[in-house]
Amino acid sequence: MTSNVVPGLETRFALAETVAHEAGALALDYFKRRETLVIETKRDLQDVVSIADRDVENLIRNRFNEAFPDDGVLGEEYGLEEGTSGFTWVVDPIDGTLPFVNGMPNWCVSIGLLHQGEPVVGVIKAPCHNEIYAAALGRGATLNGERLSLDPSRTIRNAVTGIGANNHVTPAVVAGIVESLLEEGGNFIRNGSGALMLAYVAAGRLVGYYEPYMHAWDCMAGYCLVKEAGGWYHPFPTSGERLTKGAPVVAAAPGAVDDLRKIASV
Amino acid sequence: MTSNVVPGLETRFALAETVAHEAGALALDYFKRRETLVIETKRDLQDVVSIADRDVENLIRNRFNEAFPDDGVLGEEYGLEEGTSGFTWVVDPIDGTLPFVNGMPNWCVSIGLLHQGEPVVGVIKAPCHNEIYAAALGRGATLNGERLSLDPSRTIRNAVTGIGANNHVTPAVVAGIVESLLEEGGNFIRNGSGALMLAYVAAGRLVGYYEPYMHAWDCMAGYCLVKEAGGWYHPFPTSGERLTKGAPVVAAAPGAVDDLRKIASV
Repeated sequence: MTSNVVPGLETRFALAETVAHEAGALALDYFKRRETLVIETKRDLQDVVSIADRDVENLIRNRFNEAFPDDGVLGEEYGLEEGTSGFTWVVDPIDGTLPFVNGMPNWCVSIGLLHQGEPVVGVIKAPCHNEIYAAALGRGATLNGERLSLDPSRTIRNAVTGIGANNHVTPAVVAGIVESLLEEGGNFIRNGSGALMLAYVAAGRLVGYYEPYMHAWDCMAGYCLVKEAGGWYHPFPTSGERLTKGAPVVAAAPGAVDDLRKIASV
Repeated sequence: MTSNVVPGLETRFALAETVAHEAGALALDYFKRRETLVIETKRDLQDVVSIADRDVENLIRNRFNEAFPDDGVLGEEYGLEEGTSGFTWVVDPIDGTLPFVNGMPNWCVSIGLLHQGEPVVGVIKAPCHNEIYAAALGRGATLNGERLSLDPSRTIRNAVTGIGANNHVTPAVVAGIVESLLEEGGNFIRNGSGALMLAYVAAGRLVGYYEPYMHAWDCMAGYCLVKEAGGWYHPFPTSGERLTKGAPVVAAAPGAVDDLRKIASV
């Protein structure tokens, strides 16, 4: 069915899963010897990167360039390489670098695919938990092969919401999000990986996710997963230059959409 | 050495590890079939419990009662059973019940032991990650058998801090903690299990942990682990009735103590 809608989607979806497994294995290898990594800082001391992020992104870029040389690729570490096919891969080689370098298991490889600006594939691999989340437009979402389908009875009050933040927003804004969510009877988790928390929304483990400023590589795979599991997301601007800029990210199961949109003012 | 200081500690430490493995296996079995559990709420919709918590606590109580019938036992689900030996086990069968019932891996079995009110054993088992943290007074702390020793160069500014909260404190207080920590250049994780985050402090994965209101069963094992890894903790009141009440919990690596005490006002 889907292959009629977006020609070339099936083979790309299959490749995304293969590459996510391979990239996850490489990242896990680095994770196990993380004591030897040189940690560099970017915008501040909390914004870190290492050779692991770069090597994993190179691996992913090489695989997609080999198989689909006309596709674009946007990655966190090496930016946007434009394509001509209408497809653009959107990649975070290690989402949750801070947990990663500190030895916590909550990080993942996130591979999204846009077609004419719309998320059409989302694959997230969490190597420490041996989990792979995979979705493609019109094909549903799965976790380790099992179909995901969101429960409409879950709300911010009877389930848990994920939040994220970084130094693009002020401490007062982050505090305001926490206060609003708790005031509404909600509860929050922040495990350090926005992409993984979006995958958790698709899996029904979290009822929603909100981060006021995120990049496309953090959210595109998760967005596809959430939508294909039956949830909703706030569109991310994908046209031209805006694809490389930050924007608010909100995704939710059906019963949490209204409350989260209110909290996020979107 | 330690056995001279606190007679009977060695055998209790060994038993705590054995029981933590056994309890972790039982809890993991429930986790794998969590869809079948009836979830009950306690203080509010976010405060949940199931037969898994009760069965695991019963298993732990039985093991300690059989081996050391004169020891006291305090558990989250069944309260305080006083002893006469000077030892009191302090047990959270499943810390992080909210992640547990929602299918997230961040939960643990937490077994602490007090001797005359002082934490002398701390064992935390995280079954989804196949990790066991173990410490006893004067014997150091280990993770899966490897010695833990905190790095004094880590601060709230170059490492991550864990936070926790529940409905015993207002949303404004929680928001205030987040804002203060971020204003000081820190960053936070909240994975849903306070005991596990305290174990992460001992392992150097987090540089500190602060929760304004916690119970003894949430923190005693973690406190022993942090101290034995070279860290500091804010004493928890253990005399008489106060042992069963809530109190602020703060633990930190050496380089984060002053900043966290300021944020926590302790």
